[in-house]
Amino acid sequence: MEKEKVMLSKFNVETYLKDGDAVVAKLKEVEAVADKVHDKGYENIFLLGMGGTYDELEPIQYIMNKYSEVEVHLANAAELNVLGNKRLKKGSVVITASASGDTKEIVEAVEWIVKEGIEVVAFTKPETPLGKLATTIITAPVTTGQCEYSYLMFDVLALRLLNRRNEFPKYDAFIAQTKNIFHDLVDIREKFDAKADEIAKAYALEPYSIFVGSGALWGETVLFSMCILEEMQWVRTRAVSSPDFFHGTLELVDKDVPVFLFKGEDECRKLDNRVEAFAKKFTDKLVVIDTAEYAIDGLDPEFRMIVSPMILTALVTERLASYYETYTKHNLAYRRYYRQFEY
Amino acid sequence: MEKEKVMLSKFNVETYLKDGDAVVAKLKEVEAVADKVHDKGYENIFLLGMGGTYDELEPIQYIMNKYSEVEVHLANAAELNVLGNKRLKKGSVVITASASGDTKEIVEAVEWIVKEGIEVVAFTKPETPLGKLATTIITAPVTTGQCEYSYLMFDVLALRLLNRRNEFPKYDAFIAQTKNIFHDLVDIREKFDAKADEIAKAYALEPYSIFVGSGALWGETVLFSMCILEEMQWVRTRAVSSPDFFHGTLELVDKDVPVFLFKGEDECRKLDNRVEAFAKKFTDKLVVIDTAEYAIDGLDPEFRMIVSPMILTALVTERLASYYETYTKHNLAYRRYYRQFEY
Repeated sequence: MEKEKVMLSKFNVETYLKDGDAVVAKLKEVEAVADKVHDKGYENIFLLGMGGTYDELEPIQYIMNKYSEVEVHLANAAELNVLGNKRLKKGSVVITASASGDTKEIVEAVEWIVKEGIEVVAFTKPETPLGKLATTIITAPVTTGQCEYSYLMFDVLALRLLNRRNEFPKYDAFIAQTKNIFHDLVDIREKFDAKADEIAKAYALEPYSIFVGSGALWGETVLFSMCILEEMQWVRTRAVSSPDFFHGTLELVDKDVPVFLFKGEDECRKLDNRVEAFAKKFTDKLVVIDTAEYAIDGLDPEFRMIVSPMILTALVTERLASYYETYTKHNLAYRRYYRQFEY
Repeated sequence: MEKEKVMLSKFNVETYLKDGDAVVAKLKEVEAVADKVHDKGYENIFLLGMGGTYDELEPIQYIMNKYSEVEVHLANAAELNVLGNKRLKKGSVVITASASGDTKEIVEAVEWIVKEGIEVVAFTKPETPLGKLATTIITAPVTTGQCEYSYLMFDVLALRLLNRRNEFPKYDAFIAQTKNIFHDLVDIREKFDAKADEIAKAYALEPYSIFVGSGALWGETVLFSMCILEEMQWVRTRAVSSPDFFHGTLELVDKDVPVFLFKGEDECRKLDNRVEAFAKKFTDKLVVIDTAEYAIDGLDPEFRMIVSPMILTALVTERLASYYETYTKHNLAYRRYYRQFEY
């Protein structure tokens, strides 16, 4: 049976794949940075984020905690600037990112961290405040800002570090099996597209929605709920992790309250299942988006957890958001406050 | 001028002070536990919580990060049960709590943790599932469940551990200066009482409210928003930290949207001030509750950060909640789902 051609609105497949190819071609350089960091040696790792990048680094912490004995901290840049952290030392390595290169809190943090002689690997552009400060930079060779490009580069940096520690022996297989992932992520978009339209049509104008996720998908759950729906759509959301859902938020569930569950493919899926079973009984507005329903050709089942945030971001942060925009009639690019003036 | 007598509704001062005295008398035992743990030695510390206890342990992590080089992790019990953590080893010490002693996720975690030969200090009652599992237990000799009793006992355990590491030399002064703290916390309640009534009257029926906090108050901010307003009042809330507020949630602020800012007295106050300055301009419904306005007699300014969660919990989790109940006409003890059946 021939696959029906789906036109993806507001999404340029050609540009997407071109950028994707460039990201894949860049991975050798990412690997070399990991090798350099490993060869130099380090005591512990600080993942340094703010807003969306914090959320994107969350699954990297998950991956490291799963596979490795390494001491890893996920730090919010604004908090680190006021508090410091006594575990952050000369022997630490900091991994951070800012596509714009001018995220205020991150630039401020990297400035003092570098002064203390600490290695900072930053995913950013060279001619930016962050690009000028970091000790090592990796520049995504992309013209569009899809989160999955960042995820893949972060993954490769992290997995190579673990591989060199003999904690992730299947590194080469991961690289080989993800080289066409952006093509898969187009197919995944096409498969989900009609459902995205339907979900947005049903729920975009709801006065309040609960978003539940966990494990490797928790960061992307917050990213979608906070950085997309709150920031870009002014939609009232409550993001809560699957375990926390049962310690307060559950009492808000009613037949008219939308509950979005982003089901992942890691150890925490068990916790997601519990939310699903509960929500099925008590709301008529349950939306389950399960990354397991979206294939990546030829991928080892063990790697599904690692790519699950890339799948979710393609589904919701890109596709679903674009349909929300259609129904809220609120342009995703419009902000009333964020970065509009000094505050 | 003689102080006007304030009658605190639904609050028994006599019982509160009696329980408080019992907690203060118990601190020698808490100290002895810390000494035992220190003398045995430990590699790192896991604070193990779930729901409200997770939130109450958050400031303990804050205190440890501020004063100490010790490696400390705050772990969600449900996640730890499915994921494990390779940093959790024989040489770790786990600190946990459950007033009821039967918090499912914590009982499950402590069961396997103890089997691995790891020391678990639990604040709980002896004749409970948790009490029977933990290697060391500390029982709060109280008849009521005010969070500040837990905070003080957690603080003393943590501060004594740091003291023995030579990272908190003022331990004895802290103990001496907080021996009447529950009396101060009655005065604080009296001072805030009319304001609590006024705030609840104005906002208890709002369809959506934003709660902002940071640093040592972040845990209590989530506790009030999630465990009290969501769970016990079915009020729709969005808790967000002061730094994260500027990465999404700010766009939801409008003149009709209530923003509650819980201002603390630690390094993050700077981040709270930024939220306050912003919110003042864009909502007519800003509520600032600033722990700095509530005195603890004879307390070293350095200790204000440590006691700030106790002040906030007295103000909001106890006083404000009781007035919410009055205006929502929703009994704080009533749940439709939580612990009502298996899920």
